[in-house]
Amino acid sequence: MYGDVDIPAEIQRALSGFLDRQEERLTAIGPELAEQVQAARDATSGGKRLRPSFCYWGFRAAGGDPEQPILTAAASLEMLHVSALVHDDVMDSSDVRRGAPSAHRRFEALQRERAAKSGHGADPVGFGVGAAILLGDLCLIWADELLHTSGFDAAALARAEQYFDAVRVEVTAGQYLDLLAQASGESDMDLALRVLRYKSATYTIERPLHVGAALGGGSAELISSLSGYGLPLGEAFQLRDDLLGVFGDPAVTGKPAGDDLREGKRTVLIAYAVDHASEIQLTEFNRLFGRPDLDDDEIQLLREILQDSRAVQACEELITDRTEDALDALDRAPLADDQARKALTDLAVAATSRVV
Amino acid sequence: MYGDVDIPAEIQRALSGFLDRQEERLTAIGPELAEQVQAARDATSGGKRLRPSFCYWGFRAAGGDPEQPILTAAASLEMLHVSALVHDDVMDSSDVRRGAPSAHRRFEALQRERAAKSGHGADPVGFGVGAAILLGDLCLIWADELLHTSGFDAAALARAEQYFDAVRVEVTAGQYLDLLAQASGESDMDLALRVLRYKSATYTIERPLHVGAALGGGSAELISSLSGYGLPLGEAFQLRDDLLGVFGDPAVTGKPAGDDLREGKRTVLIAYAVDHASEIQLTEFNRLFGRPDLDDDEIQLLREILQDSRAVQACEELITDRTEDALDALDRAPLADDQARKALTDLAVAATSRVV
Repeated sequence: MYGDVDIPAEIQRALSGFLDRQEERLTAIGPELAEQVQAARDATSGGKRLRPSFCYWGFRAAGGDPEQPILTAAASLEMLHVSALVHDDVMDSSDVRRGAPSAHRRFEALQRERAAKSGHGADPVGFGVGAAILLGDLCLIWADELLHTSGFDAAALARAEQYFDAVRVEVTAGQYLDLLAQASGESDMDLALRVLRYKSATYTIERPLHVGAALGGGSAELISSLSGYGLPLGEAFQLRDDLLGVFGDPAVTGKPAGDDLREGKRTVLIAYAVDHASEIQLTEFNRLFGRPDLDDDEIQLLREILQDSRAVQACEELITDRTEDALDALDRAPLADDQARKALTDLAVAATSRVV
Repeated sequence: MYGDVDIPAEIQRALSGFLDRQEERLTAIGPELAEQVQAARDATSGGKRLRPSFCYWGFRAAGGDPEQPILTAAASLEMLHVSALVHDDVMDSSDVRRGAPSAHRRFEALQRERAAKSGHGADPVGFGVGAAILLGDLCLIWADELLHTSGFDAAALARAEQYFDAVRVEVTAGQYLDLLAQASGESDMDLALRVLRYKSATYTIERPLHVGAALGGGSAELISSLSGYGLPLGEAFQLRDDLLGVFGDPAVTGKPAGDDLREGKRTVLIAYAVDHASEIQLTEFNRLFGRPDLDDDEIQLLREILQDSRAVQACEELITDRTEDALDALDRAPLADDQARKALTDLAVAATSRVV
């Protein structure tokens, strides 16, 4: 909870109510569609609700009236996030998301069960992938519907739309850069930094602030000053997330320890290590990085290379610098509301500190 | 061309102009994104532009002013269609679309070439699937952006949005029913009829008419009467398409002969045959249907079973009946424009005749 409103609870309520209405509409087409709605319910449960929180406080920072349906509109960013996660898990063949089976694995299990019961039916893996692609599509469509049926008037929605269009396209573009980075088989700091920005930074913090501020009628000056806070903070957030992907506690991250090392995710952390490792370290690194069958000792060895090459320290310094830049920009930003300033300060810490 | 406007040329112009602007925006994020825009250009080229045509004539039927940007708005339905095709080809593992490699195969070839040139890089198949998922996402986002940046005023857009939301959700729901039908390994007439309706009929004809009519300020009575024309015609259209998938000339369909038989598509045609085949026919049918390696003789044998079980005749009769129902409803519909009546009559023939 930040400030005077329990954002996670309100977002959960908005998402549940919306999905109740979608369930009515979809099961009228076919009772089978309840499976998709249930998958959407599970995929939109939990999580830190960071994007809606930034949207809410962007709105308040612009002097928006909290009696307006800002939390319904903000829920659209959570729905968009879930769409991206579901498709991302298909693309990465990830088995686990937030400690539960990823969407495509869930549908795969459903189909396996159905085939076992009926004695026929084929290809549960293909079914799982197809059903998850459709779930991601539904969530992408619903993100838009949540925003434009939120109850804001047409003028407010028209102001927000350009930012909502931007964030949807940017995150998809960032995903494509990420896919290229993974497929290239080598580390490239420039590409890793662009993935950091578009796959995560703008989409997690800057754009949600913009959508909220635009709904609240914020000036061009305010919106620009929110970029000064949101962009560096978004990068710090993702750098922290990259460190957690390698060093994080599975109980906190909801993913197996060292999962990003097995997946071979070419993050800024990894690009730095590759650029600065000794020849011996690099040979060892290249031998192990991205192997799906890494054991605990090998994970530990890779972690040591990331420490010894000073990649971890470099990322920690970047996080500190970027967070300070964000807070300095926040100090100078013409916010309409002191509670928003306080909440955005708290959120900066929450999004980048070691234990999130 | 129908009536006084060259719809395919205008739609092509709207799509090209929109993609020019998107290319500027995306290549500012990374020059690599030009690959996605080029794939979108190719995927949105050609085709019969049926959906935008119905949208345009729905608008005119409502008395909409042709000076309004209806053809830009109508292009959104073509973009939505391309999104569905790209994701559908991934789900079906289809290699070919409109005589060219499907999007995922195209990206796969691109990655294979890149890896060969650089000497490293991995998994072209996975890259192709991931890149095509993202292309479909971009087209889904762009469909919405095309509509709400088309130039219509906020009131017109607000009227159209509910129909645009409906069509996006319906086609995704229809795809899920289709996926279930394919995975079930058996034919079910009820399920095949629902796939026919939602995966194709509402989305090809009824909803495009509704989006156009709503933009044009059509009454509830007009919109309802357009359903009386659009729904049966949409079903007739898809039944024709199902017949073409089995009996069509590859030069016309852009797909290999009998492709739907190799894919094992469980259409209404197939459900009818399974319900009415003799025991001997059924045994033969089950042995061959859905085998990817069917040769010409086996394709011919399956076609004969579809003929002899009278499934083909039943589909032809359904097409005739549904098209007549549609034209009767059109006669009674309170259209604001005689040219629209003439064009919708011509489109009914074009969408369901044997040579389309």
